[in-house]
Amino acid sequence: MSYTAYFESRREEHLNELSEWLRIPSISALSAHKPDIQAAAEWLSKTLNQAGLEHVTIHPTGGHPVVYADYLHAPGKPTLLVYGHYDVQPVDPLNLWTTPPFEPNIRDGKLYARGATDDKGQVFLHIKALEAVLKTEGTLPVNVKLCIEGEEEIGSVHLTDFLEANKELLAADAVLVSDTSLLERGRPAICTGLRGLCSLEVDVTTAATDLHSGSYGGAVPNALHALVSLLTSLHDDKGRVAVEGFYEGVPELSPMMREEFAKQGLDEEKIRESLGLSALYGEEGYTFVERVGARPTLELNGVYGGFQGEGSKTVIPKEAHAKITCRLVGDQNPQKVLDAIEAHLKARIQPGAEVHVRQMEKAFAFNIDPSNEFLQLAADAYGKVYGTRALFTKDGGSIPIMESFSRILQAPVVLMGFGLDDENLHAPDEHFNLENFDKGLLTIVEYLKSL
Amino acid sequence: MSYTAYFESRREEHLNELSEWLRIPSISALSAHKPDIQAAAEWLSKTLNQAGLEHVTIHPTGGHPVVYADYLHAPGKPTLLVYGHYDVQPVDPLNLWTTPPFEPNIRDGKLYARGATDDKGQVFLHIKALEAVLKTEGTLPVNVKLCIEGEEEIGSVHLTDFLEANKELLAADAVLVSDTSLLERGRPAICTGLRGLCSLEVDVTTAATDLHSGSYGGAVPNALHALVSLLTSLHDDKGRVAVEGFYEGVPELSPMMREEFAKQGLDEEKIRESLGLSALYGEEGYTFVERVGARPTLELNGVYGGFQGEGSKTVIPKEAHAKITCRLVGDQNPQKVLDAIEAHLKARIQPGAEVHVRQMEKAFAFNIDPSNEFLQLAADAYGKVYGTRALFTKDGGSIPIMESFSRILQAPVVLMGFGLDDENLHAPDEHFNLENFDKGLLTIVEYLKSL
Repeated sequence: MSYTAYFESRREEHLNELSEWLRIPSISALSAHKPDIQAAAEWLSKTLNQAGLEHVTIHPTGGHPVVYADYLHAPGKPTLLVYGHYDVQPVDPLNLWTTPPFEPNIRDGKLYARGATDDKGQVFLHIKALEAVLKTEGTLPVNVKLCIEGEEEIGSVHLTDFLEANKELLAADAVLVSDTSLLERGRPAICTGLRGLCSLEVDVTTAATDLHSGSYGGAVPNALHALVSLLTSLHDDKGRVAVEGFYEGVPELSPMMREEFAKQGLDEEKIRESLGLSALYGEEGYTFVERVGARPTLELNGVYGGFQGEGSKTVIPKEAHAKITCRLVGDQNPQKVLDAIEAHLKARIQPGAEVHVRQMEKAFAFNIDPSNEFLQLAADAYGKVYGTRALFTKDGGSIPIMESFSRILQAPVVLMGFGLDDENLHAPDEHFNLENFDKGLLTIVEYLKSL
Repeated sequence: MSYTAYFESRREEHLNELSEWLRIPSISALSAHKPDIQAAAEWLSKTLNQAGLEHVTIHPTGGHPVVYADYLHAPGKPTLLVYGHYDVQPVDPLNLWTTPPFEPNIRDGKLYARGATDDKGQVFLHIKALEAVLKTEGTLPVNVKLCIEGEEEIGSVHLTDFLEANKELLAADAVLVSDTSLLERGRPAICTGLRGLCSLEVDVTTAATDLHSGSYGGAVPNALHALVSLLTSLHDDKGRVAVEGFYEGVPELSPMMREEFAKQGLDEEKIRESLGLSALYGEEGYTFVERVGARPTLELNGVYGGFQGEGSKTVIPKEAHAKITCRLVGDQNPQKVLDAIEAHLKARIQPGAEVHVRQMEKAFAFNIDPSNEFLQLAADAYGKVYGTRALFTKDGGSIPIMESFSRILQAPVVLMGFGLDDENLHAPDEHFNLENFDKGLLTIVEYLKSL
């Protein structure tokens, strides 16, 4: 039986199995979901065992556990380390989901659920591809290790320590990761660059208590006024970040790089329309792909203060808050960027208000040379299944741990993604297009056999 | 028995009775509390009956009911209409209350509860003063009507219509209201001016869905960026409102008015300290009392968008919201002010974002001539109880319905308040200083007897 027939005959069973996993709300950012994280790790380890993998272990860390498994019966052949994550993003605003985030639902050939594409769905492809080869051939053509963590959505807090402590266990010739996207339907891509990430939380405080706007309005500082004015100052009116030193380490785009980006042939008008936007918006002088792939960004992810309920409340709030993340490129130093933002905010706080900054995640940008053979063979494997060889691209997202993998394990990282950009990852109605579920299984099998 | 002795002997009973009322969470802004509003109105009407008042009626309106009562047995004597409200402000942030807002608690001679000072506590003084005179003298020296509404905290939405429709029923020689503050402990004041009010809600929208900051950050509009930049543009960097036309109708402060404000002898340093502020903040060229009493203000009461939970979420939010109120003075036209703000926002919205404005409350400022005899006698009544005659002041708050009372009933309005500015009205830990509970009862009795 061909692998195509193998996967077709088991498709329903596979989707049911994946749905079981998706039903576990393993949100790493919310401590209330700690038991769900544990349940998701246990489900994973059970499934790895059933697939025929060996040495399946749930490794505790300072935070959420790492699940390890391997199959090392191809002496003389390369060793591949598959990395992924079983934790998911929070789900609010809940009311914008068409069907509940943890009740997987298939509509129009797409599987809807939080984690469907990021990243449980993609991790599941590797497990089922390995299982298929093991069942069909009785062994694997290469040595394989899996390392699936539970803290990717909160910055892989404990994974670097885990890699350092388990260098021998995880040693590999290449790291294989499926947590990125195709260029668009039918156009596979291998990402050779990821943006870095740093994040901070900003708290502005004023009076000791909320104040009545009748008794005090116009004569006391308002924490919301102070905050929005600070936040506005972070960009100039052209959309460029206005923090001194922010762009330090950002490489100029060479004509050659611009040409490579242009190859993707992205239709900006089509993107604008698909997002329901009246206009795209960003730093002047760059195209959409350049802005996302090669330029840093500073985004307000959340701002809140004062009254949010129904109706009005004439209150002058005593505190206001913002959550900010930056995506970094080139050699931008996340620590320096955070320090620069903190200094910028502190220098501009309005009289009568105080600003407190909490620095959070810090990850360098990541870049890899596409001429490496593990990447070239991966592009070929896509070509066999999709009918078109993968393009080498740069992605705007961050998988902060990639830099650690390549540094600690001294191995190239192959980002073989099967998602699509419009699959609402991190947003309501996240889904995974099943066309890439089917092709992803076959691509991974092709890749394993080609090594 | 003197009235002092009368009230002393019933103090505990009165406080228990008031606490009963304060336990009813009659929050007019939240529709879930509609049954509580009804319960608070019923409690009031029962208590008015028990006090010996007549024709007690709960009048339905298009919104929350108005409670009416009267005692009209002093032919040839003036008729006083007592106005107040039994609805209260929302209570969030709940975690900042020392004791729960609807579990009245006495600490250090202060009664803590939502509505303790604004306005159930102050309405209660009138009921118990009338009851005391009725029980002691068998009748009242003047004719008295009461009109207590349930929508003051949401802009008295239906009261103007109610006044128009019940002109005869409510006809009076003066309107007596206790919903304002002393200057400070031991220094009574009669407010002769109130700021007007207008409010609006602003919604900014961008993409059809929240977007991942990795895939899109730097290349698409962020609703929060667009909103905070709009909100920042509402003030200049000196704290002055930067909306064209906003100050139209605002009277210049004459040297005489400035002198009257200065008489209050307000210690700005003391205020700053009591509020826990490192600095006061407001329009340049004005003192604290001038800013609050004679200058308009535009305040952000609530701003929210994106992720507010624990941890971080790399989302580009598709929508962001703000709630804004303005306090108005002189002849500022609330409709014109709202239109000016709406035009200001629409002219400045960032490419790719849309702004929607909902105009809400609209109330003119209110001013009254302190030489009127009803006001002069009220100042005397304070003098007898507090040992110092009331000063005539201007308050920064708004009781939007005052303008309607004076226009529709053609009667002077006497704002005889017993609150204190630091009693956290509209904020956590609202309370009523019982010193003014005791003196308020006696002052009202003195006033009734003096007319």
